[in-house]
Amino acid sequence: MSEKSVTSRDKDKIPPLAIPRMSLYYRALLGSREVDFISSEELANLTGVTAAQVRRDLTYFGQFGTPGKGYQINELRTSILRILGIDKCWNVALIGIGNLGSAFLSYDGFRKQGFNIVCAFDNDIRKIGKTFEGIKIQDISELQDVIVEKGVKIAVVGIPGNSAQEVVDMLVKAGIKAILNFAPVRPEVPDCVQILNIDLTIELETLAYFLTSSEAE
Amino acid sequence: MSEKSVTSRDKDKIPPLAIPRMSLYYRALLGSREVDFISSEELANLTGVTAAQVRRDLTYFGQFGTPGKGYQINELRTSILRILGIDKCWNVALIGIGNLGSAFLSYDGFRKQGFNIVCAFDNDIRKIGKTFEGIKIQDISELQDVIVEKGVKIAVVGIPGNSAQEVVDMLVKAGIKAILNFAPVRPEVPDCVQILNIDLTIELETLAYFLTSSEAE
Repeated sequence: MSEKSVTSRDKDKIPPLAIPRMSLYYRALLGSREVDFISSEELANLTGVTAAQVRRDLTYFGQFGTPGKGYQINELRTSILRILGIDKCWNVALIGIGNLGSAFLSYDGFRKQGFNIVCAFDNDIRKIGKTFEGIKIQDISELQDVIVEKGVKIAVVGIPGNSAQEVVDMLVKAGIKAILNFAPVRPEVPDCVQILNIDLTIELETLAYFLTSSEAE
Repeated sequence: MSEKSVTSRDKDKIPPLAIPRMSLYYRALLGSREVDFISSEELANLTGVTAAQVRRDLTYFGQFGTPGKGYQINELRTSILRILGIDKCWNVALIGIGNLGSAFLSYDGFRKQGFNIVCAFDNDIRKIGKTFEGIKIQDISELQDVIVEKGVKIAVVGIPGNSAQEVVDMLVKAGIKAILNFAPVRPEVPDCVQILNIDLTIELETLAYFLTSSEAE
């Protein structure tokens, strides 16, 4: 579960959950290569949202679709690529090469979507210097120099909670502007930096809530 | 980023993101043992939301707090425990023992919060029969029998997308009522089953969107 804050007034009108839904629409469109047009109903069916939601979401980002015909698939796909900024590749820094970090390194789905892990850091001397999935694990003390040098803007943080704020501070100083954080804390970042916190215990607690409340019905 | 559907009319009034915020409040209260009362402002500061949001969220679940004094910490902590259903332990089944599944098995934070992984499954014969973090990995073909026998209601799915629907169908048949899904697809489940989808590529795309839109400002 992640929460975001957006500073600009225009962007404030866009509900945070509309962004990941745009990702979903994009994927659904990738699987619809045989036809030219798709209706909001069809796009809704493919993504598990309502047709009204599809239309509302797209309205936040521009004018799409032709009445009676629907959305031209190639055009919408290209537009969403551009809106999400995934029409180009993004370099990503990975901090913490435990099981979660290793999962990130070994998942080729990120590269396919244009996210390249270009550097990886850990503070465990048993890991530093080793190469994993083609990426040499570097000492976390080298983090700032390497990130500045490579101009990386996105970081994934998969480290214990007690060192998360310190590492996030280092990332911000190195010029990182967007962080996906799996440490079970909510590090503070300046307004100009975007952080998405994914706390797996909170996800399980959310499921426990739904089980408990449905049992009570 | 996860989306949920709640069926009951009462629960429909509760915004889905209020649930994980209750988890955050609970954690903040755990760290405030020295004092008896806490104000919504203090709770807001500890969790990074606004005081109005704290008050609104708590109102969904009951009447808390004393004007001029704030919330009695022990009482609120106990209430949130009960509301979230984490005043008891939950058994969890884990499906897919790749890097992500291993991360789940080795993270002791879940057990501390009352989530016990009691069975783990994979279809890789090199893993089946091995014991990892005290849990013997079983053949995925035994999934239904084991889950029924143990009465497990929560499952964590960390497998490739192409087999996710099939495995989720097996889980539903076995009586699983809540699923945390990391496969990069959105499996269909009956209304009586709650599924939270965490798609790491979508999270990265959301960050790419924020970087792109802030560069455009």
